[in-house]
Amino acid sequence: MAAIPSYTPPDFSRPDLAAAPAVRTAPAPADGVLPPGFHATSNHPEYVHRGSGEWLLAGESRMDAVLLLDAGGLRVVEPRLVRQGEPVVMGRSENGEEGIYVHTTGFDPAGTATEGKFAFRARGTRETPFSRSYDELYEILRHDREQGSILWVLGPAVAFDRDSRDAMQWLIENGYCHALLAGNALATHDLEAALFRTGLGQDIYTQALVPGGHYNHLDAINEVRRRGSLARTVAELDIRDGIIPACLRRSVPFVLAGSIRDDGPLPEVITDTVQAQDAMRQQARRTTTVIAVATQLHTIATGNMVPDYRVMEDGTVRPVFFYIVDMSEFGADKLANRGSGQARAILTNAQDFVVNLRHALAGTGKL
Amino acid sequence: MAAIPSYTPPDFSRPDLAAAPAVRTAPAPADGVLPPGFHATSNHPEYVHRGSGEWLLAGESRMDAVLLLDAGGLRVVEPRLVRQGEPVVMGRSENGEEGIYVHTTGFDPAGTATEGKFAFRARGTRETPFSRSYDELYEILRHDREQGSILWVLGPAVAFDRDSRDAMQWLIENGYCHALLAGNALATHDLEAALFRTGLGQDIYTQALVPGGHYNHLDAINEVRRRGSLARTVAELDIRDGIIPACLRRSVPFVLAGSIRDDGPLPEVITDTVQAQDAMRQQARRTTTVIAVATQLHTIATGNMVPDYRVMEDGTVRPVFFYIVDMSEFGADKLANRGSGQARAILTNAQDFVVNLRHALAGTGKL
Amino acid sequence: MAAIPSYTPPDFSRPDLAAAPAVRTAPAPADGVLPPGFHATSNHPEYVHRGSGEWLLAGESRMDAVLLLDAGGLRVVEPRLVRQGEPVVMGRSENGEEGIYVHTTGFDPAGTATEGKFAFRARGTRETPFSRSYDELYEILRHDREQGSILWVLGPAVAFDRDSRDAMQWLIENGYCHALLAGNALATHDLEAALFRTGLGQDIYTQALVPGGHYNHLDAINEVRRRGSLARTVAELDIRDGIIPACLRRSVPFVLAGSIRDDGPLPEVITDTVQAQDAMRQQARRTTTVIAVATQLHTIATGNMVPDYRVMEDGTVRPVFFYIVDMSEFGADKLANRGSGQARAILTNAQDFVVNLRHALAGTGKL
Amino acid sequence: MAAIPSYTPPDFSRPDLAAAPAVRTAPAPADGVLPPGFHATSNHPEYVHRGSGEWLLAGESRMDAVLLLDAGGLRVVEPRLVRQGEPVVMGRSENGEEGIYVHTTGFDPAGTATEGKFAFRARGTRETPFSRSYDELYEILRHDREQGSILWVLGPAVAFDRDSRDAMQWLIENGYCHALLAGNALATHDLEAALFRTGLGQDIYTQALVPGGHYNHLDAINEVRRRGSLARTVAELDIRDGIIPACLRRSVPFVLAGSIRDDGPLPEVITDTVQAQDAMRQQARRTTTVIAVATQLHTIATGNMVPDYRVMEDGTVRPVFFYIVDMSEFGADKLANRGSGQARAILTNAQDFVVNLRHALAGTGKL
Repeated sequence: MAAIPSYTPPDFSRPDLAAAPAVRTAPAPADGVLPPGFHATSNHPEYVHRGSGEWLLAGESRMDAVLLLDAGGLRVVEPRLVRQGEPVVMGRSENGEEGIYVHTTGFDPAGTATEGKFAFRARGTRETPFSRSYDELYEILRHDREQGSILWVLGPAVAFDRDSRDAMQWLIENGYCHALLAGNALATHDLEAALFRTGLGQDIYTQALVPGGHYNHLDAINEVRRRGSLARTVAELDIRDGIIPACLRRSVPFVLAGSIRDDGPLPEVITDTVQAQDAMRQQARRTTTVIAVATQLHTIATGNMVPDYRVMEDGTVRPVFFYIVDMSEFGADKLANRGSGQARAILTNAQDFVVNLRHALAGTGKL
Repeated sequence: MAAIPSYTPPDFSRPDLAAAPAVRTAPAPADGVLPPGFHATSNHPEYVHRGSGEWLLAGESRMDAVLLLDAGGLRVVEPRLVRQGEPVVMGRSENGEEGIYVHTTGFDPAGTATEGKFAFRARGTRETPFSRSYDELYEILRHDREQGSILWVLGPAVAFDRDSRDAMQWLIENGYCHALLAGNALATHDLEAALFRTGLGQDIYTQALVPGGHYNHLDAINEVRRRGSLARTVAELDIRDGIIPACLRRSVPFVLAGSIRDDGPLPEVITDTVQAQDAMRQQARRTTTVIAVATQLHTIATGNMVPDYRVMEDGTVRPVFFYIVDMSEFGADKLANRGSGQARAILTNAQDFVVNLRHALAGTGKL
Repeated sequence: MAAIPSYTPPDFSRPDLAAAPAVRTAPAPADGVLPPGFHATSNHPEYVHRGSGEWLLAGESRMDAVLLLDAGGLRVVEPRLVRQGEPVVMGRSENGEEGIYVHTTGFDPAGTATEGKFAFRARGTRETPFSRSYDELYEILRHDREQGSILWVLGPAVAFDRDSRDAMQWLIENGYCHALLAGNALATHDLEAALFRTGLGQDIYTQALVPGGHYNHLDAINEVRRRGSLARTVAELDIRDGIIPACLRRSVPFVLAGSIRDDGPLPEVITDTVQAQDAMRQQARRTTTVIAVATQLHTIATGNMVPDYRVMEDGTVRPVFFYIVDMSEFGADKLANRGSGQARAILTNAQDFVVNLRHALAGTGKL
Repeated sequence: MAAIPSYTPPDFSRPDLAAAPAVRTAPAPADGVLPPGFHATSNHPEYVHRGSGEWLLAGESRMDAVLLLDAGGLRVVEPRLVRQGEPVVMGRSENGEEGIYVHTTGFDPAGTATEGKFAFRARGTRETPFSRSYDELYEILRHDREQGSILWVLGPAVAFDRDSRDAMQWLIENGYCHALLAGNALATHDLEAALFRTGLGQDIYTQALVPGGHYNHLDAINEVRRRGSLARTVAELDIRDGIIPACLRRSVPFVLAGSIRDDGPLPEVITDTVQAQDAMRQQARRTTTVIAVATQLHTIATGNMVPDYRVMEDGTVRPVFFYIVDMSEFGADKLANRGSGQARAILTNAQDFVVNLRHALAGTGKL
């Protein structure tokens, strides 16, 4: 498929790589503590030389993790999860000098390494043409609906508008969402919309402030806390519309990560942020395309966890796409600046983006 | 039609208005100079009391102009166009005390004056639900296509993307644009796209920077200057796609107003800003709906010229709608803060906005 | 002192309040679950009528909490902390109809209730004049340094620049900071600056990217995790400069709240967000002035916890000031829109703000 | 002086340059029309090879102009000012292939060509450390006050705040401004402040909206139009404070360029945009440091006119610095993206920037 470039592994017969030493490890001095000189992962494919020309590719990688290498193979682990004595890969060079090779050009079209990289890094602004980006995105989503795993990261804005909430529901119901990462606010306002047709007390269609509407999200939270879970609430009240209900009906896993600004929170919210990270990474390991919409916090958190490649079950390597939909260049650039080179920013309104996507994928106009 | 509220004129039999004195005028002391104490217009319907209970409504009004009253009637004139000795309406009160009445509630639904005003002024942000705003806009455009006059104010971003440029062309060709206000850049990059498929040297579909592409807009300008006009260039080169060509084919008038950042400029550009204002106001007088997209300068300039009502040829009064499409709350609020109460901000990307509009009005999805 | 308005309590002899019924309570049906119809607090002074004309003012209030009323008095408690059977104040009216009175005009200058409120709520933009806001802020800080409690809420940007980091240190050392709320990133980059003179690998003075600098914050975190705490690290390495070291030296309490984007985290970070909220509220209860700089998440979280008044130990009531320093109108407005009417936005760069404040309070220029 | 790097001319004995052909010219086919294949200037030093190893450096260059070469030498001229038959330099290569050499590394420190360029182009955001940028700016301004020429480009925001307006006045009075480029709005609101203490009707110190204040700027404009000029108005009314009065007193030239959003305009405003460009370029030719504050239109217009070098009267070449002070990354990047590589963005509030600058240069704190 045109939109998904193929992967060219490094040529380990190259003289510099052929001459590379075996990688070195050192034991972690304590739980959650690394030996000085540890190697930290990027979001690119990384190989370590176990010796004798055997190079291992790190599977299920992420940014700023460490590599544990033992007889069982190579694992990518967050520093806080490293246990005392585990063998941590050492070295801070990236071209084989210490047995570590970071392969940044594996998805470049043949013969265009430099150009490809340049285009890849070009930063978009609100005036950048996005026509092809959209066409590619549609192609990718149609492909990954069947053969990949699409991960959505959503801020609450998507639930504040009737049409975008409907569109997101449609995308879930039609197989374009394999997992959802969000916070307490998205789920709360999605439920508020289901129960009261408002978002933070404002009608999600007419924008009108409803009298007493500022109680609506508090009442929604209280309702769920009383019943014990979102699942039970949706079932007992027979709620049929909305984002979370669609996930429940379709068995799409969702992670609601807690934050210090949460009211409630809802029972499903994972209030401990390191536990929430662990749950998020479970989904991040599998993803082939991420679409992060209107949430800086969750987008950066997810961006840190998602590498720019995935080793599929058959051993092939494919790129992971990462779309960031945001209104400000600052927000969109922030992730790109942290080293997530695969991020593609689309500068637009979250609601429009989701509504468009639905119509493009459904092949229907707005009537 | 539901979307277009009807107008309720003031009740001049109200005691305070019935007791209002006749308005006073004073002669302008010199060309372009006003008598101290002059009255400046708002963008609302304003009436002056000529005496004996005869109140005249200002037609074709605008912000910060003055009223000239003589036997021939009441005219709204920019201060710089006032000639020595002309009778300028005096007074700075707005409730009849000096024979001037500013009618701010004429379009409010019966019995809801206060609420109506409040909703009208609510400021949108990127998280505001826009579903109904879009539905209303579609309804208004379908109505005004036949029975009104739709004025577009465009920044160059619309020409930087293939799909949005195509969509704008479609809107013009299908009768949704009765006049266009823009600057040198919009026309230049529209032509650059026609000749080279680029915008500022960047491919309008793929985003790729074309080698030597920074010459493209200069070559486009030179081509037009050589041939003498956009009209001749489009005809001689048989250019069929684009915004300006569509206007030329459909005889949609356009005003290109000069600015100090212009290259060239193109021959049609009115380099003198007061002449450009006069040409813009010719179009502004007629409009019933304005859609201003991705240009702060032209949006504010137009906003100053467009009142929130229009007196139709049959004497009926209808509202004038003013949509501002911008990416930043600052940009969108700026006009609202200057007193253009009718402005409705839609916070989104210009390209998405235009593409959506096309699909919604055409009743087709993006395929 | 001029900058701190005095408080006028409600006149409970007013006929409508004199006729108010006693407030009603209902037992919480389960831990963390509220009885339907519960009353939620605003950030304004709220009084409940216990009967016989006895009105109790809620002390240590906050947004969206509930009131528990029993023989021991009136407490403001987050819904999740309510225990089964506790008596929750019921009612959603605010003018005494159900024995609850929300007093929004207590700090208005005599006779100017309406005007005062209007000015209070005026939204600033980047073009708003801030001269008096600064002068007032200096006056307030000089006052509250001795007679109040100044709470800073800081995003990491303050630590990314040498001068602003120095300035913040100075403000702490000179008594202008009684407590600090921040996240893992602020402390991490503050320590990174102390150890490496960089912020995310970029020199905090020259902006130059340091080779291998992307390891610096990971090494800083690892160093602290190895030693067990920030306090021990600062002591053992004899670190003298920076924000956290200044807090430690001056015994200024700080709360580091966890988020899902944290690397590490540092040992002092409270990873559970509800525990972090509890710790933050401990500081929020005492504050008389909040200065929230360049962090949307922590600002909103804090804004939810800080009422617009404080009952001092001697029973007097004074306003709590809440300054938000942010670069975008969207960010600054967001808190104001949630009902935190006392928030005053200053639209500017965090670094400039802090540096200016230091010079203004020190009475020195930048030399 | 450390802050002002020295210039290294190209080495024309390099084999590729030694072998370069003489440059070719072609006559302009008509007034304001260029021969196809014309060369357009960048903002870098450009040399043309007249033949026999004689290379001429373009003096007083600018972006997107053309080079005219004849016996009298080499001139940089805007395309619209080229007259029929004048000899236009041809060629679109930049490394001598056609006798044109664009020298982009002349100001790089010896031996660091690549690094220097990289650092130069790094984009700032609101989180970038600016400490050194400020220190360098102070050093540059102290130097250029005596030995250079400082050009300010000002949006109206500077006049909307009492302290920043005072600070700007101080900078002019103390020799830190050799010329000023602005629009009708800056001068209008500066005068409004002098006459009424308001900006657009809002008190420039307290932010309070003054009753009837929306007339103030119209009355100010009318006052000046009545008296015939700003100079006469300032003299006759004995106005002592403000930006324009300071320019008049110190004989600092100012250009007020017209735009389509102008009320009035004031008599000094040059309403024709090409005439305004000519007047602006008169100032731009001389400048050694530009400080552009809070105006996108004037900043881009000026950026197009100011090269990154200046040939001094003694023939030495020095860099021209270009500071852009803006609140949004989008605004600040826009100029940089157009090829003005020398632009340095400072992301902050215009008012704070000017006030800080005054205190830093005066060596005084805010008291």
